[in-house]
Amino acid sequence: MVGVYDVYRNSAGAALKDADQVPVNDPFGAISAMAAVTNHVGFGVTAAVTFEQPYVLARRLSTLDHLTKGRVAWNVVSSYLNSAALNIGMEQQIGHDERYDMAEEYMQVMYKLWEGSWEEGAVHRDKESGIFTDPAKVHPIRHDGKYYKVPGFHLCEPSPQRTPVIFQAGASPKGQAFASRHAEGMFILTTSIEQSKAVTTKIRDQVEAAGRSRDSVKIFTLLTVITGASDEAAERKYQEFLSYASPEGMLALYGGWTGIDFSTYDPNQPLEALENDSLRTTLESLTSGHDGKTWTVKDVIRERCIGGLGPVLVGGPQKVADVLEEWVDEGGIDGFNLAYAVTPGTTSDFINYVVPELVKRGRAQTEYKPGTFREKLIGTDTPYTEDTHPAAEQRGAYADKESVQDKTTDSNFAEEKIPQAAQ
Amino acid sequence: MVGVYDVYRNSAGAALKDADQVPVNDPFGAISAMAAVTNHVGFGVTAAVTFEQPYVLARRLSTLDHLTKGRVAWNVVSSYLNSAALNIGMEQQIGHDERYDMAEEYMQVMYKLWEGSWEEGAVHRDKESGIFTDPAKVHPIRHDGKYYKVPGFHLCEPSPQRTPVIFQAGASPKGQAFASRHAEGMFILTTSIEQSKAVTTKIRDQVEAAGRSRDSVKIFTLLTVITGASDEAAERKYQEFLSYASPEGMLALYGGWTGIDFSTYDPNQPLEALENDSLRTTLESLTSGHDGKTWTVKDVIRERCIGGLGPVLVGGPQKVADVLEEWVDEGGIDGFNLAYAVTPGTTSDFINYVVPELVKRGRAQTEYKPGTFREKLIGTDTPYTEDTHPAAEQRGAYADKESVQDKTTDSNFAEEKIPQAAQ
Repeated sequence: MVGVYDVYRNSAGAALKDADQVPVNDPFGAISAMAAVTNHVGFGVTAAVTFEQPYVLARRLSTLDHLTKGRVAWNVVSSYLNSAALNIGMEQQIGHDERYDMAEEYMQVMYKLWEGSWEEGAVHRDKESGIFTDPAKVHPIRHDGKYYKVPGFHLCEPSPQRTPVIFQAGASPKGQAFASRHAEGMFILTTSIEQSKAVTTKIRDQVEAAGRSRDSVKIFTLLTVITGASDEAAERKYQEFLSYASPEGMLALYGGWTGIDFSTYDPNQPLEALENDSLRTTLESLTSGHDGKTWTVKDVIRERCIGGLGPVLVGGPQKVADVLEEWVDEGGIDGFNLAYAVTPGTTSDFINYVVPELVKRGRAQTEYKPGTFREKLIGTDTPYTEDTHPAAEQRGAYADKESVQDKTTDSNFAEEKIPQAAQ
Repeated sequence: MVGVYDVYRNSAGAALKDADQVPVNDPFGAISAMAAVTNHVGFGVTAAVTFEQPYVLARRLSTLDHLTKGRVAWNVVSSYLNSAALNIGMEQQIGHDERYDMAEEYMQVMYKLWEGSWEEGAVHRDKESGIFTDPAKVHPIRHDGKYYKVPGFHLCEPSPQRTPVIFQAGASPKGQAFASRHAEGMFILTTSIEQSKAVTTKIRDQVEAAGRSRDSVKIFTLLTVITGASDEAAERKYQEFLSYASPEGMLALYGGWTGIDFSTYDPNQPLEALENDSLRTTLESLTSGHDGKTWTVKDVIRERCIGGLGPVLVGGPQKVADVLEEWVDEGGIDGFNLAYAVTPGTTSDFINYVVPELVKRGRAQTEYKPGTFREKLIGTDTPYTEDTHPAAEQRGAYADKESVQDKTTDSNFAEEKIPQAAQ
């Protein structure tokens, strides 16, 4: 995310102090190093469609797809931080709905570059004829839209997946409509299995309405798992983590996510006394599963210092595996967007304690399917998007259109060869 | 370079066919992988100041400087390819002089972010107090200029070098003035040692006029070295390489570099018959060192199929080392921007045949100086730019100005601690 959390106390001070997503380096930078020492893991990289021209970002993502041998996913965001917009010279953040209109056109440009510009077989690499690329099979995309103008052809030769696996996390109606067309992976945030079932059903309904199969999108719900050898050990760990937590850091994040500055609220105010209806509802939803007590604002903030806005699951391998199975079987999700309380501890705990239990139950794979990230994740037989995905509409769409070859004028040098050097 | 060579024959066809800098991937992508398997080599990455906002590029470069432990150089270009401008939605390329005005302001923004925004000692990483960064030592740069507005602070904590080593290759008067202020490394193109002496003297005069010492900029001249075990072996290799060369590929590159489309010229026309004065002069300068024959346009193009616009040196280790010494001792240069005819062959030949001879003569190092790329290249005692460099003007410049801490408003949660989890 190119921006900082500066809503709480009208400043990024709390975020800086606690290092709440700041400092934040460029996520693209580290991927090739990680790819060089792994064979199967996929790399999801977040990039906003509002801050960089599609012609440039398409090249950046194709490059990573080449370097990772087809293991890149792109988490498409239309940035929501005002501080980011200001720092790239915009007077203010673009309106929410218009952002999604821009994002829709942006995706069309990307698909044209990735799928349409270079036909299959355009690259010969033929040492005998001296032809690397056949210009007749490379096409300028001639995109001339409302927000973007891209007359040229894609700068990279097609990468293993062409279009990286598309991830999205839109929660608004516009965001959901966008995701139902483009997303192959979706991040959701639900606080209960019942809610998850409702959300995933709605998403799959929308995906189906967009002409795609219900399981063509893989849905991941945000979850923080604190685990250990036993339920008691996990609970002790959780309590220890909470003792290190920072309420102000939580409020810095919460301010960025929601736009609400908590600094003027009374920490000891019971939730039911809050006058702001939408805030009260939001906070009450974060207390679900903890009935029978009067929650104060402070209670919610403390509770949420681990797990952010998502649920926290504390327990030993059996308990965790039971709940995960329930999320999948009852909640309709495909997997988990695992957040961490400490790094790498939260992740390695999950690997050491939970994964073996899931394998025992036949719920986790023991080896990777070969191929690109898309083949591993979606289970497709090719590295490319399914035919029902909008990227597929651009596949071969330029084959009978203008090519780079067409434009070439005559040349007196066209027949020149150098059989031997001029002396 | 975000663009393609499409002047020759009014098309990128020739460039595509020969793979003349197209396809071209994002150069940033591969750096972390290369850094992970090396300890000393520096990475110079080219990025134009016209296509990406400084706030975003500053983060990208800081990230790489972190990941390489201070081994990044930035080759600053103000892009000259019209095709690139069109594809990022600009109606046409910005005028040359205005590009340098924009570049000058761009550099000021970068230095403010890299040098001024985060004071030395801003980052505590203090586990006891829970403070990662002291917001009182982080400053919004409040840049409000003619071309760029960046109110915020830098997103990355200071990287080892803060400002990457700055490279430049400006040849125009505006470009030279820019380079004399900012460049710590300069790429030049000269076709003779005499010309090199004149150019390097002028550069160092300008650098001195800009208040910097004459040797604070390291100058690298473009050179292609074809070498082998003996002069004869090198000459055979050169002739073989020429037999593979592509005149049309050369013209595609030459068209992009100069804006001249050769397709309508007569290949067999002698240079002295060319009516375009500046073209004739340019082509004649490329024939230097080959006197006593009548050169045709075709002859020059063929000759230039290896080495581009720079000189080509063909010979065994002794001959090559003799000439390199002369370039350094008489031409006033610090090193060579070695181009290749084949890759990795041209480079490995140089390492295998020439480097041992240079070591024998005490002209090549046998071990690296420790530290960052700047310390290795410039010989400074710190990872930062010299005090006479414009980046240094921003060092500590914000220390007594507004900090992120200043803006913080009161909060009812400021004193909240979580000694034990809420139950």
